[in-house]
Amino acid sequence: MNDWRSISGDLDKLRVVLVATRNPLNIGAAARAMSNFGARRLRVVNPYEAAFREARSAVGAAGLLAKAEQYGSVAEAVEDCRLVVGTTVAGRRELQHRLRRLDEGARAIKRQMKAGPVALLFGSERVGLSNQELSHCHWVMRIPTREEHGSMNLGQAVAVCLYELVRGRKTAPGKKEKTSAKSGDVERLTQVLLEVLRTSGYVKPRTVAAEEKLRRLVRRLDLNANDAEVLLGMLRQIAWKLGADEKDGPG
Amino acid sequence: MNDWRSISGDLDKLRVVLVATRNPLNIGAAARAMSNFGARRLRVVNPYEAAFREARSAVGAAGLLAKAEQYGSVAEAVEDCRLVVGTTVAGRRELQHRLRRLDEGARAIKRQMKAGPVALLFGSERVGLSNQELSHCHWVMRIPTREEHGSMNLGQAVAVCLYELVRGRKTAPGKKEKTSAKSGDVERLTQVLLEVLRTSGYVKPRTVAAEEKLRRLVRRLDLNANDAEVLLGMLRQIAWKLGADEKDGPG
Repeated sequence: MNDWRSISGDLDKLRVVLVATRNPLNIGAAARAMSNFGARRLRVVNPYEAAFREARSAVGAAGLLAKAEQYGSVAEAVEDCRLVVGTTVAGRRELQHRLRRLDEGARAIKRQMKAGPVALLFGSERVGLSNQELSHCHWVMRIPTREEHGSMNLGQAVAVCLYELVRGRKTAPGKKEKTSAKSGDVERLTQVLLEVLRTSGYVKPRTVAAEEKLRRLVRRLDLNANDAEVLLGMLRQIAWKLGADEKDGPG
Repeated sequence: MNDWRSISGDLDKLRVVLVATRNPLNIGAAARAMSNFGARRLRVVNPYEAAFREARSAVGAAGLLAKAEQYGSVAEAVEDCRLVVGTTVAGRRELQHRLRRLDEGARAIKRQMKAGPVALLFGSERVGLSNQELSHCHWVMRIPTREEHGSMNLGQAVAVCLYELVRGRKTAPGKKEKTSAKSGDVERLTQVLLEVLRTSGYVKPRTVAAEEKLRRLVRRLDLNANDAEVLLGMLRQIAWKLGADEKDGPG
């Protein structure tokens, strides 16, 4: 089916990222749903080792699992992606992020996939994505489960999200999207800004909460690639000047 | 949430019918997806007895499983329904039935549920619905999987179909639109940033082009009011530190 092939091309830009998954059946189920809907690139972050080994030996979608890439942190797993989206279900009220309904969010993801890789993150079975993990996301997509029983099976959540991404294939040709900055560059910018804020006394050294807050703030800016580069240049100059003054100053 | 309740009322008219299911995990997964999306009436036709017993003892959605009704034939299981819909995936070409895409089919089901009960049938894991079983259906709904790997996990198929049935219900979770920053505040931020960039040597004093470029860049960030305030605070601290160092430093 030609329709499918064109979509499959699109989903080639999708990176499904499973974070801290515990159950091998769930990794296998996620891989199967990916294969069903035409997503091919699976990344796992700190899976329970045994779970990942066991999943790899499962039947169905074996090729996809064999090629799955393993990372030690969310930052590394999304480094090449221009858009990073977290997933959640009903009942998580403490989120700091902008929430989008799954159908809205999928539209935004489809537009962005024309420009470059997009990461879609799924958290662990028990607690979902932590605030630290979410701080790498531009925004969060919510599967419309009931408030009274929000918690979804991981494999089912992956299937529902991927279905929404291939649903109604013949979408109107989107407006041209800006080229968003790569996550790796946005994170570098975040780190230099953090350094500057520490040097200037705005944040105290080693305050993790401040780092997460800052990371979310920088993601909300939704920078394009060029602006991110310009801002990074500015910050490096400021950091250099602050450092130079520190050294030259009396103290 | 009132919105949900009205939808839940609609899905109360849905009968999810699992035909000849073999794996208890799949019955449990189907029940969990039903609970997630607000469908309550599960019917099973000729399940493998042990599978059904085991599923009933599973955690989560236990109430729903306890109330599941067991039938000896599809005919009995759909007897009270005004519309009976089969489900299938890509790759089944021998179907005699009218095929509808999942999104189209879901629209028709939602209309019909206003009038009376609707049965949605899912076949066994290995062979799906037989032609005999399908003969009870008015039409068949197809989940848009790939031709090359059509076969879906049963629990995932149920989740995807139910998601489509509740999709678009208005549970937009308190999506608060951001309050954009006032122009005056954005301009203040621009000016402090410019001062910092001059002090640190990133731009030369009195270069108008740089100022305009910077103004456009800051506008592109499309800041919300709160982020603008936070960033202004950061920049003022940096400016103060740079100024203090200038004064304290040699020269």
